[in-house]
Amino acid sequence: MDNLALCEANNVPLTPITFLKRAAECYPNRTSIINGQTNFTWPETYDRCCRLAASLISLNIAKNDVVSVVAPNIPAMYEMHFAVPMAGAVLNPINTRLDATSIAAILHHANPKLLFIDRSFEPLAREIIQLLPYADSELNLPVIFIDEISFPERVSSRELDYEGLIQRGEPTPSLVARMFHVQDEQDPISLNYTSGTTADPKGVVITHRGAYLSTLSMIIGWVMGTCPIYLWTLPMFHCNGWTFTWATAARGGTNVCMRHVTSPEIYKNIEMHNVTHMCCAPTVFNILLRGNPLDLSHRSGPVHVLTGGSPPPAALLKKVQQFGFQVMHAYGLTEATGPVLFCEWPDEWNRLPENQQMELKARQGLGVLGLAEVDVKNNETQESVPRDGKTMGEIVIKGSILMKGYLKNPKATFEAFKHGCLNTGDVGVIHPEGYIEIKDRSKDIIISGGENISSVEVENVLYKHPKVFEAAVVAMPHSQWGETPCAFVVLQKGETDKEDLEDKSLSREKDLIEYCRENLPHFMCPGKVVFLEELPKNGNGKILKPKLRDVAKGLVAEDKVDVTSKIVHRRVDHFTSRL
Amino acid sequence: MDNLALCEANNVPLTPITFLKRAAECYPNRTSIINGQTNFTWPETYDRCCRLAASLISLNIAKNDVVSVVAPNIPAMYEMHFAVPMAGAVLNPINTRLDATSIAAILHHANPKLLFIDRSFEPLAREIIQLLPYADSELNLPVIFIDEISFPERVSSRELDYEGLIQRGEPTPSLVARMFHVQDEQDPISLNYTSGTTADPKGVVITHRGAYLSTLSMIIGWVMGTCPIYLWTLPMFHCNGWTFTWATAARGGTNVCMRHVTSPEIYKNIEMHNVTHMCCAPTVFNILLRGNPLDLSHRSGPVHVLTGGSPPPAALLKKVQQFGFQVMHAYGLTEATGPVLFCEWPDEWNRLPENQQMELKARQGLGVLGLAEVDVKNNETQESVPRDGKTMGEIVIKGSILMKGYLKNPKATFEAFKHGCLNTGDVGVIHPEGYIEIKDRSKDIIISGGENISSVEVENVLYKHPKVFEAAVVAMPHSQWGETPCAFVVLQKGETDKEDLEDKSLSREKDLIEYCRENLPHFMCPGKVVFLEELPKNGNGKILKPKLRDVAKGLVAEDKVDVTSKIVHRRVDHFTSRL
Repeated sequence: MDNLALCEANNVPLTPITFLKRAAECYPNRTSIINGQTNFTWPETYDRCCRLAASLISLNIAKNDVVSVVAPNIPAMYEMHFAVPMAGAVLNPINTRLDATSIAAILHHANPKLLFIDRSFEPLAREIIQLLPYADSELNLPVIFIDEISFPERVSSRELDYEGLIQRGEPTPSLVARMFHVQDEQDPISLNYTSGTTADPKGVVITHRGAYLSTLSMIIGWVMGTCPIYLWTLPMFHCNGWTFTWATAARGGTNVCMRHVTSPEIYKNIEMHNVTHMCCAPTVFNILLRGNPLDLSHRSGPVHVLTGGSPPPAALLKKVQQFGFQVMHAYGLTEATGPVLFCEWPDEWNRLPENQQMELKARQGLGVLGLAEVDVKNNETQESVPRDGKTMGEIVIKGSILMKGYLKNPKATFEAFKHGCLNTGDVGVIHPEGYIEIKDRSKDIIISGGENISSVEVENVLYKHPKVFEAAVVAMPHSQWGETPCAFVVLQKGETDKEDLEDKSLSREKDLIEYCRENLPHFMCPGKVVFLEELPKNGNGKILKPKLRDVAKGLVAEDKVDVTSKIVHRRVDHFTSRL
Repeated sequence: MDNLALCEANNVPLTPITFLKRAAECYPNRTSIINGQTNFTWPETYDRCCRLAASLISLNIAKNDVVSVVAPNIPAMYEMHFAVPMAGAVLNPINTRLDATSIAAILHHANPKLLFIDRSFEPLAREIIQLLPYADSELNLPVIFIDEISFPERVSSRELDYEGLIQRGEPTPSLVARMFHVQDEQDPISLNYTSGTTADPKGVVITHRGAYLSTLSMIIGWVMGTCPIYLWTLPMFHCNGWTFTWATAARGGTNVCMRHVTSPEIYKNIEMHNVTHMCCAPTVFNILLRGNPLDLSHRSGPVHVLTGGSPPPAALLKKVQQFGFQVMHAYGLTEATGPVLFCEWPDEWNRLPENQQMELKARQGLGVLGLAEVDVKNNETQESVPRDGKTMGEIVIKGSILMKGYLKNPKATFEAFKHGCLNTGDVGVIHPEGYIEIKDRSKDIIISGGENISSVEVENVLYKHPKVFEAAVVAMPHSQWGETPCAFVVLQKGETDKEDLEDKSLSREKDLIEYCRENLPHFMCPGKVVFLEELPKNGNGKILKPKLRDVAKGLVAEDKVDVTSKIVHRRVDHFTSRL
């Protein structure tokens, strides 16, 4: 039994880049990418990726070299998810909402051999280059601009540009054979930064094996059939678009690209291209419902929406579903290559009362098949919590879809993998039916008089209030209890248009606290409610709690609202513009 | 980038047995197995498998030991697909339709440490033991009987029995931890014989990695959602039930077990348990349509049927789909751990004319995601055929889901993997849309006057004749052309009941040949039509062409039908009873 040796035929390293070759062979007439007036078929995308990879190789890009990119959801960004690893290199997609200083910090840490940047970011690019230490050394970081594909800018013939690289690439058959053969499936395929602005940059190294298994897990978790029409509302720079960059190729889908996530753009694309799938943070539901939401419920099938980043509030969920969106909730993290929990939805749950359905849908769900283990453990004893839906612990996971580690950060890597699992830093419970529900980020938990308060639970109650549009709860200092919840609230549109008298604001705060006291244990009620015009968010629509926590730190429960509220307004505005 | 070392958290060998642990955790209240009056939940199945594995370990079953089993689709057969590899051993499921000599030949070759056998096969077991060479050596093969779970036979206390092993198993936590940790994902998980009766037994060695990846590929190919109700019409001994033994656990499904595949049993189970999925060879469609087929089209959803082994004839397909079965066609082979091509069905194909739909559905389809490569190659030049839907070549595949090789048969392993791919021995074409269609087994191709004739194409024409129930075409010797097609036909029920005069038979043959000449090039028409009461089939309902070929060898195109027809009847009957 042991004598059998593996051979070329059955010992093939796993990599998602094979999905591109398969797509060109299996879906030769299907549209791979739609970007405004420009369409490609899968054989065309395959050809463009092969050419780009050949050009990269001719530029001496080699194994383990990093290639960075700053671009919105455009065809080039999609193609690079294949072409860069096909050249043996590692793709480093950078959050486009970061400022020059943050991007320079990432580049300094990642040390790429090339930087691709969308032409719309040209001024930013100049600023970044100025900030890089290369300026006074012999090193040089070539910048390659990506022009709008249908209207390329005139570039000087000496300047490298994206389409030029594709044109001049010469993918010979032997070179192409090499491109699709990965030496070791544990080799890195991408480098995704979770935070670049701090002194402790965390560059998550994703492997070919992890990306392959994660892609399969996504397709299964979402029950994605053949030939989906996928709308790119989720930024591809975010966790490689939750691995759907690779999954759409695997399923022979069509990628509908979008530069800007606005309500008219989304609805236009859904109608025009008959979109079947899209991913987004729950905050995008607000974009979908604001303005003139289009009722899609008459269509032959729903638009399947995979949402994550934070639990979808029940009221929002109900509304978007009425409009023809079928929402599935997932939970993931960059360190796990994408989503790792899916709120699987058995048929019979459709027969439950609507409110109960919404509560169930807000749960993060069950571990994907790419994980070998999921558990919720007491942080101190390292013991599994009882499956009672009540006892909180840290969610820990294990399996081949996890990152290889943090680049050049052995300390953070060690901490992340302590106790033989990836410690997610998220605090949750396991319900008796097996579904995991996240109560909070461990750092978002509010500890009041020794009691753990889940900020998410308080937010859920606030979201149910008819006047509340968005809410975020963080800890604020309390003289007696140590900490107490502080709520930041954006009111529904009609509400804020009304006269903004100080006592109005005060009575609003009183109302909301009173409302919370009716719906929550008293110790969980916010000591203060701060009204904002919008919440500070990152590029993916995720609310930036650290920013709010900074603000809340300067408050105490006894302060007058009128003064602090104004300060808060100014400070948060400042943060928002920076992001 | 290279400095990152893998660790316990992210370096987890792939194995489908983790799906059992996950099912117990994620679907704690779901029914795992239904067998008549007996039901289990997933935690119960998990517990029983852990106990059985613990018992096997206590019997000194160790890594790479083979454990054989002869049983129909009963809970024990399902449990052993997990428990045996959990003990580190290799499961060897044996075709229950084989005779004692054939099974003894397999056992002699596989050299198992234990043989599990269903009580209904007790006389067969005695016969097998007699045939084993162990009788006069010191070696001994312990036989463990599996009794009907709800009515266990009285067994002497000294006799090992299946339920006894489960009862006495003591799975300690440290033992269980070991059970779910596979040392190397390339270790074998099962040993499946494709032919045990010849002098050249082929025991296909399947790895944990291959089984894991194949299971994921099946779920994706069939777009199988959460919590399916799966009816076991396909024997589990056949390619581990096309890996659905593991897939139902992966999806938290319910396994509805069935000892005998009869029309009343199938319909009873579908109705009683609300079955959503089943697998079968197309010949089972005949079982579904004979007698009193139940119209299921009123149900809220169809019964999804995955079919393979031979292309589903259009007429049969149409009928079963009218009755509420939604058929998907797949193609696989034991050497590839299960199905490897799925006839993916894009939505817009539902708008095509019905006949065209049936033609498309008969295609074998697109390679699964677990394969790295699928191609159709000219056997002599090893070049890919043009994708024109016409040029035939051998289907070759590559990827981690392939077998490790044939046990103790380096020559056959070498032949199978020659040229760096698995050579399937199936001859097909690639259509311009990328779908592969199999024209024949390479050994079933009929070569007439230098022209290749696909027996499947001739059969397809015969199947369209209203009086034809089943048809199989093989080569028969021809004095002038070398070979010519010989058709074996079973008529529709009403037809055979009529008076069986010799000239009737003769005129029927003439009719059918005439009909073929109207619908096929003349050189492809059968030189002879032989009418049978039934076609010889193996345990999976697959028509045994080698048997028919043996018969046809004794015929020549000029023979009188009356004589040969009778001989054929007798000879085929003999084969049928043997299988």
